[in-house]
Amino acid sequence: MRYLIRISYDGSKFYGFQRLKDVKTVQKSLEDALTKIDRGPVVVKGAGRTDRGVHASDQCVHFDLTHNIPTKGLKEILNKLVGPYIYVKECEEVSLDFHARFSVKQKTYRYRIYFGPFCPQLYDYVFFCPSKLDTSLMKEASKLFLGVHDFQRFVSGERENNTSVIYDISFHEEEEFLDIIFVGKSFYRYMVRNIVGALIDVSLKKRKISEIEASLKGEEVKQFSTAESQGLYLEKIEY
Amino acid sequence: MRYLIRISYDGSKFYGFQRLKDVKTVQKSLEDALTKIDRGPVVVKGAGRTDRGVHASDQCVHFDLTHNIPTKGLKEILNKLVGPYIYVKECEEVSLDFHARFSVKQKTYRYRIYFGPFCPQLYDYVFFCPSKLDTSLMKEASKLFLGVHDFQRFVSGERENNTSVIYDISFHEEEEFLDIIFVGKSFYRYMVRNIVGALIDVSLKKRKISEIEASLKGEEVKQFSTAESQGLYLEKIEY
Repeated sequence: MRYLIRISYDGSKFYGFQRLKDVKTVQKSLEDALTKIDRGPVVVKGAGRTDRGVHASDQCVHFDLTHNIPTKGLKEILNKLVGPYIYVKECEEVSLDFHARFSVKQKTYRYRIYFGPFCPQLYDYVFFCPSKLDTSLMKEASKLFLGVHDFQRFVSGERENNTSVIYDISFHEEEEFLDIIFVGKSFYRYMVRNIVGALIDVSLKKRKISEIEASLKGEEVKQFSTAESQGLYLEKIEY
Repeated sequence: MRYLIRISYDGSKFYGFQRLKDVKTVQKSLEDALTKIDRGPVVVKGAGRTDRGVHASDQCVHFDLTHNIPTKGLKEILNKLVGPYIYVKECEEVSLDFHARFSVKQKTYRYRIYFGPFCPQLYDYVFFCPSKLDTSLMKEASKLFLGVHDFQRFVSGERENNTSVIYDISFHEEEEFLDIIFVGKSFYRYMVRNIVGALIDVSLKKRKISEIEASLKGEEVKQFSTAESQGLYLEKIEY
């Protein structure tokens, strides 16, 4: 039986999603719990990896169990074993050709910026921005990233192809928060954080919009800032 | 020189305020930093102790240093040494007869209740309430606690006198949050959490308002619930 679960987690409590030796990761926590439940090794596949400190409001994970366990009970047992910093919101059976990563239609990420006074209880959950940002400049610059691009200057790590498509970037201001929401096909490592960093650089007038344009064309341009991990949330996965 | 600092902290990162052997507490973190700065043992006195898991938006602490350090510099060094889960908001020199605890005029506590769906990123910062509460019933019951009372049935620990005065209890509803704000002279251990527990018990119709009345008169009444620590914030200290 193949199962799909939708989970949320507090990224500050884990060394990222991916299983690593000797540290607590989201994947390891889930696999340890499922291995106990299924009484045999279980491997999980996530819709994407999130780095250390990055949160998820809706990450999707699939796995196969040898035992047939009703989804309601499975959700309850899992939550007992992996809670409270991972939470299984939904659990369903899926067909064997479903794949949490390869079946993704689109992903949404949220980046939270906070302009209020420093506050320890928010430290792990937002990027504290000491100066007010020029959001009209950010919005203008954000349009450059829409559509299909080779994002090689905005990603980390080596891969053959850095082409992806961003469908939408929107801005939501409420009280002292500014949330930037990205909707796209797939986001490579550091891509959202590097784009946010570039938008902040531009809005602080440290860098010019034309440098983003040049960068997207693949020209050699000094690297933009990388926004901190704790402001980033994997917000939604759609299949 | 005597100094007063106003600090905030994330209670989920400490074993409470008070210094304890072998664990990280707010007092220990501050004393370790100040001892390093003053190159000799420094003891701090807080306006009050907060239990494990309880947050502070404005806790006040005084201490004496043998060296005369400008307040601006002291604030900066302290924040480097104790941050980011403790934050020194203000630092000032005070006279030697000032005492962080004995000079308090009034204290404000906030208790945060959340009615939204479970969310791991909020786990350490609110009390998740699965059922909607009858706030009109809570407001009515809260009036019983106003003024001078012997709070012996609502506190924990042995002490000669449990009399105190609560000046105000107010309710703030915003989206899925309900904040209950207490203003009073002094609050004994578990007092706010036990009062909130009683208000919740009454609003869920598990207990009657008359039982609160009886309890405040010192009559033997079955104990009310104690609200969880993570929803509690020491909000303001006034001198």
